[in-house]
Amino acid sequence: MIVHGEEPFDAETGLAALAEGPVTATDAFYVRSHGAVPEIDSAAWRLRVLGVVERELELSLTTLREAFREREVTATLQCAGNRRAGLIAIRDIPGEAPWGPGATGTATWTGIALADVLALAGPLPEAAHVGFESADLCPEAQPPQRFGGSIPLDKARRPEVLLAWGMNGEPLAPVHGAPLRVVVPGYIGARSVKWLERIEVRSRPWRGYFQHVAYRLLPEDGTPGPGAGMPLGLVALNADVLAPADGQTVAAGPVEVRGYAFAGGERHVARVDVSLDGGASWSQAELLEDLGRWAWRHWRITVDLVPGDHEILVRAWDSSAATQPEDEAALWNPKGYVNNARPRIRVRAAAA
Amino acid sequence: MIVHGEEPFDAETGLAALAEGPVTATDAFYVRSHGAVPEIDSAAWRLRVLGVVERELELSLTTLREAFREREVTATLQCAGNRRAGLIAIRDIPGEAPWGPGATGTATWTGIALADVLALAGPLPEAAHVGFESADLCPEAQPPQRFGGSIPLDKARRPEVLLAWGMNGEPLAPVHGAPLRVVVPGYIGARSVKWLERIEVRSRPWRGYFQHVAYRLLPEDGTPGPGAGMPLGLVALNADVLAPADGQTVAAGPVEVRGYAFAGGERHVARVDVSLDGGASWSQAELLEDLGRWAWRHWRITVDLVPGDHEILVRAWDSSAATQPEDEAALWNPKGYVNNARPRIRVRAAAA
Repeated sequence: MIVHGEEPFDAETGLAALAEGPVTATDAFYVRSHGAVPEIDSAAWRLRVLGVVERELELSLTTLREAFREREVTATLQCAGNRRAGLIAIRDIPGEAPWGPGATGTATWTGIALADVLALAGPLPEAAHVGFESADLCPEAQPPQRFGGSIPLDKARRPEVLLAWGMNGEPLAPVHGAPLRVVVPGYIGARSVKWLERIEVRSRPWRGYFQHVAYRLLPEDGTPGPGAGMPLGLVALNADVLAPADGQTVAAGPVEVRGYAFAGGERHVARVDVSLDGGASWSQAELLEDLGRWAWRHWRITVDLVPGDHEILVRAWDSSAATQPEDEAALWNPKGYVNNARPRIRVRAAAA
Repeated sequence: MIVHGEEPFDAETGLAALAEGPVTATDAFYVRSHGAVPEIDSAAWRLRVLGVVERELELSLTTLREAFREREVTATLQCAGNRRAGLIAIRDIPGEAPWGPGATGTATWTGIALADVLALAGPLPEAAHVGFESADLCPEAQPPQRFGGSIPLDKARRPEVLLAWGMNGEPLAPVHGAPLRVVVPGYIGARSVKWLERIEVRSRPWRGYFQHVAYRLLPEDGTPGPGAGMPLGLVALNADVLAPADGQTVAAGPVEVRGYAFAGGERHVARVDVSLDGGASWSQAELLEDLGRWAWRHWRITVDLVPGDHEILVRAWDSSAATQPEDEAALWNPKGYVNNARPRIRVRAAAA
């Protein structure tokens, strides 16, 4: 893994590990934290459900496992800062990790539907958002506070939103949120709150630092502050190349190009195109295994490279027939979020 | 209205009528037809519901009005060919109407939830799509057939999808689909089938001409044919300028620029920016009245124009923080669908 920070621990998946297949190996799965991994005694741990509900709940892990139907969802998580390095290359973004394309990964998550827990609590008529609060204390927040965020109630009630204790068939590791985390498919990773302790049903979006100040898209000349900029939530259509690597020298002739594309929200990837002439002409890549509507698609195409330098340009299309913006520079923003410009890599083809 | 065809009748709304406000006047609302307006005797008319359902239904208008709760949704409809003129300017698209930015409009629709009718019919476990068939015979189809299309069952069950008999507080006019039409907010206009006669619950998407051959996004070098290209469904993020008009001469000084932006799907418009320097710097426009999650947003901004020629460039952002692609030429496709490039207009500012 490529480690961006030790405390809190931030690390992204290397290209080779991502390229292995559409399900990301658990021990290579990216980690984004805002505080130290909390030490939690699973036996003593309780999930509290409160806010605008008919009845508050306090549930042990045993109760959660026994009272609700176990469910499984294969879903891609993606950090809002994925591919930030491309923006930093244009203009520095001090204090933010230079994530490459590996702040994303796909796993099969096991747990229960958040909807089932909400149904037991009974949201009152004024309920409109569901907030999640973690056990980890985050010193970077102003003021220091536990990590948290919320999603609309409408989304929270959908069957794909899980409270998960398992990842790729194994118990969830502490670094990934044990004993229980949220998994919100189609939303930025920051909403899939780890080390979940408290669910707060609310009439308004979460007001904590990580939703009201951080994880917001600012205009190019904007300054972070309470309510400034656009709140992030749904992931935007994105893609990147996993092989060959940018700057790699390959043997001239047929070269397999591979990557991922993720539509975000409730959309799916409909098409991926590759161009070798700067976008003047495009060839369609093959979409690989379909892991369902909440997972990215890996793709591949074989291109024929004559000896010399080449630029490989990619664009994905989602199910609304929307495609990615071209100009990375125009997407620059002060926190370096949502770089979803068309990826491009340079490769040198060497004669045999 | 700007008439593109008399038989079938195709006409778009003029910029001045669109600019009047976010709800489009009924008599100026765009019309896209594929056959002649059918003559329907409302008293004898019946809605048939069939396919993979527990019980087939045959319902009169009176029954529909009496058996189900009346609902109202303000929703934008948008033709998949909206703004095609911008693609035709790059390369001709024979046989397709040169729609400008007025193949879209917003109305308040009155009727009942499709979900309620489906619940009465009881979709069987294999049900996955809901098809709609019209009364109009379309000679342009191969072979000639009634207009039709389908949406996923998941969408069909959502409360915003209506079977509508009213538009902006008046009975639906024949040209807009009387006695009953479908309104599918967030989807291309072609799924909001007019003159509805038959609902077919299905395990697979509609196989008729208007979904399996037409209304698909082809690659630039593609040829229309059964299953060719990407099926259109969700509307992609789009925007255009309504005032001033492209090529207009205005008085130098403060000039109000107005337009619309529509996120499509289940997204909303989060931001609209305007640039006078080709995208080097941007100013945020004011988003006008919010008519709810299924309607576009009108926007306005006052820019200061010195005497001379100016280009006004616009980009909208949706709630996933996705923005529009820049390059209109790169979006060219053989049927001219989904031109959602950043709109740009040229104006001349004349000294007083």
